[in-house]
Amino acid sequence: MRTQVGIIGAGPSGLLLSHLLHLAGIDSIVLETRSRDYVESRVRAGLLEQGSVETLTEAGVADRLHREGLVHHGIELRFDGVGHRIPLTDLTGKVVTIYGQQEVVKDLIAARIAAGARRDHAPILFDVEDVAVHDVTGSPRITFRHEGREQVVECDVIGGCDGFHGICRPAIPDLAIYERVYPFAWLGILSHSRPVSEELIYARHADGFALATMRSNTVSRLYLQCAPDEDLSLWPDARIWEELHRRLGCGDELEEGKIFQKGVTPMRSFVCETMRHGRLFLAGDAAHIVPPTGAKGMNLAIADIRVLARGLERFYARGETDLLDRYAEICLRRIWKGQRFSWWMTSMLHRFDGDDPFEHRVQVAELDYVSTSRAAMTTLAENYVGLPFEV
Amino acid sequence: MRTQVGIIGAGPSGLLLSHLLHLAGIDSIVLETRSRDYVESRVRAGLLEQGSVETLTEAGVADRLHREGLVHHGIELRFDGVGHRIPLTDLTGKVVTIYGQQEVVKDLIAARIAAGARRDHAPILFDVEDVAVHDVTGSPRITFRHEGREQVVECDVIGGCDGFHGICRPAIPDLAIYERVYPFAWLGILSHSRPVSEELIYARHADGFALATMRSNTVSRLYLQCAPDEDLSLWPDARIWEELHRRLGCGDELEEGKIFQKGVTPMRSFVCETMRHGRLFLAGDAAHIVPPTGAKGMNLAIADIRVLARGLERFYARGETDLLDRYAEICLRRIWKGQRFSWWMTSMLHRFDGDDPFEHRVQVAELDYVSTSRAAMTTLAENYVGLPFEV
Repeated sequence: MRTQVGIIGAGPSGLLLSHLLHLAGIDSIVLETRSRDYVESRVRAGLLEQGSVETLTEAGVADRLHREGLVHHGIELRFDGVGHRIPLTDLTGKVVTIYGQQEVVKDLIAARIAAGARRDHAPILFDVEDVAVHDVTGSPRITFRHEGREQVVECDVIGGCDGFHGICRPAIPDLAIYERVYPFAWLGILSHSRPVSEELIYARHADGFALATMRSNTVSRLYLQCAPDEDLSLWPDARIWEELHRRLGCGDELEEGKIFQKGVTPMRSFVCETMRHGRLFLAGDAAHIVPPTGAKGMNLAIADIRVLARGLERFYARGETDLLDRYAEICLRRIWKGQRFSWWMTSMLHRFDGDDPFEHRVQVAELDYVSTSRAAMTTLAENYVGLPFEV
Repeated sequence: MRTQVGIIGAGPSGLLLSHLLHLAGIDSIVLETRSRDYVESRVRAGLLEQGSVETLTEAGVADRLHREGLVHHGIELRFDGVGHRIPLTDLTGKVVTIYGQQEVVKDLIAARIAAGARRDHAPILFDVEDVAVHDVTGSPRITFRHEGREQVVECDVIGGCDGFHGICRPAIPDLAIYERVYPFAWLGILSHSRPVSEELIYARHADGFALATMRSNTVSRLYLQCAPDEDLSLWPDARIWEELHRRLGCGDELEEGKIFQKGVTPMRSFVCETMRHGRLFLAGDAAHIVPPTGAKGMNLAIADIRVLARGLERFYARGETDLLDRYAEICLRRIWKGQRFSWWMTSMLHRFDGDDPFEHRVQVAELDYVSTSRAAMTTLAENYVGLPFEV
């Protein structure tokens, strides 16, 4: 097989890249080791910045997003038992939209498959095995097995969109890596129950952080700070609800529904500054991970893809490599701001067992300041709704 | 001797307290272990928030401050060799004023002595020895030796304004202390040379922080981050200038004048939340220390004294103790915000040798963010010119 851009990974990054390239008349193929069903039901991020929504809208894949997404104009910080609303839209003129990552993935897969009917190869191959990249600094090839057959994709460029555990990043020598692992994780549940509040509640409690968010008007997404190696068997539903009630400081407004998903999310900050090696470009989780506190993961991925897609457009349209050559530099400036914000939100809201008492008081002063200063609230808000794109 | 308020320490806190009480018709006496000459030439803080200037102006002790103080409308952050101006006044409508702490002390001493001519005891006793406080939860007394004679001051209330190393704080049992000692210090000089720039320059450099400030249009105050146990004998003038040139990234605009003072300032964050014990009230450095990066030390002291003086006014005028009873609570809210700001400025601008590379990148991202986001700039500016007084 031959294509212009070989893309590894059918998450939001790989699919959006493939779709944006398609809109620019550039051929690509997406290879995914999981099944379509798996990626379409994988629960991950769930909040889109306004710029991310605009990007998907311009790409023509946001009809359902606009119908079903929940538009939010504020969030609540709750500490010492008192809620403080951060009026995102009043402060920034922008909104955020609650819409699950798997929904973005469904919309993009549908668009890719619809477009692919007019091509000589399928736009996405699911359930591929043994994917490997070769000669990325020369004439790139991707080898893999699909439906029992060994296959090769020859391409000009490879998009490494295969996530944190993917094969693309390890294929690059001498990576510049920056990393922090946090001494806690999130125990997250999905429950058939109406959301506690119309807006998200970020709660700092002496027993640890809690977050009340939602997937829809009938499905709540709720999180509790826990140990990185938390044993889920010690968390029967009743204990989860009790802990949520206490940390969120909610009464009856926290409806206890049927819990239909339960899991532990580790917390990590990770940046691979080597986002390009020859003709292999890393994007999204393959290059960087943020703790979920700032809701930045999917949004940073979309921002990477904007730069990469535009760079490839210029390359194919006019042979110009300037944007591709500055790909990492351009992305990293926004990535590091996203990392800073995610680290700051995480630091401000979690319980750190190793903390000295001074640091604890500074944390409380930070919350007091953020909830009383319009400027400080605006810094939170402008990062939350999304800083401007670099490109 | 008998007075209404016995004040220990003739720094800005003790002297301002005595003066504000005098304006309210309340008698006090200030006891100081150092000589008048010493406290009038002791070089410490040098920057006044707008609210501090207003407080001194309302108290009628700011004539010379308004004549000689240098009013500043901005500061510069310099990193990666590039300067970024934070336009304080554009962002907040307020200014800061460069005016040495010892000048504030001179003005207050002059005012106290002028007023004291009409009383039955001197308003300030310098060079006192062996100061001790007694029965602070009952009928307070201060004992001391002055000019060879043992003396006693009986009073209603004691103002503990005797600084970090004073005797008042240790006289209180069961102190609630919060503390952080930084792994670096500042090597500071005073030089007969014109300031590098009209405004202060805060520089982050790979070799460490540097600060260019001034005392007047002909005297520069310059600082270099150094080790806490830095040996000054290893810092001949030529080395200091060389290092300042490199870290500030200055050429000829950094004039090398005669250095007439050289010292190492340790960096510490310290809060004693027990600011009151019976009739003993701690204020200023006796209760809290900030690293000098945020220029908050003298300003937090002035804010404490506003609350204490008003509390005592109400007490003597109407017998009401409500404000005095909330003294610590009211002061601590602003103190912790000042601590947070000082910690943040210190963290953002210094070299931390123990840092992991991730933290270093976050530090750079923070500087990038602060110098490009109006909201983030405003948080710096509003803290720098001074948050509103709580009372």
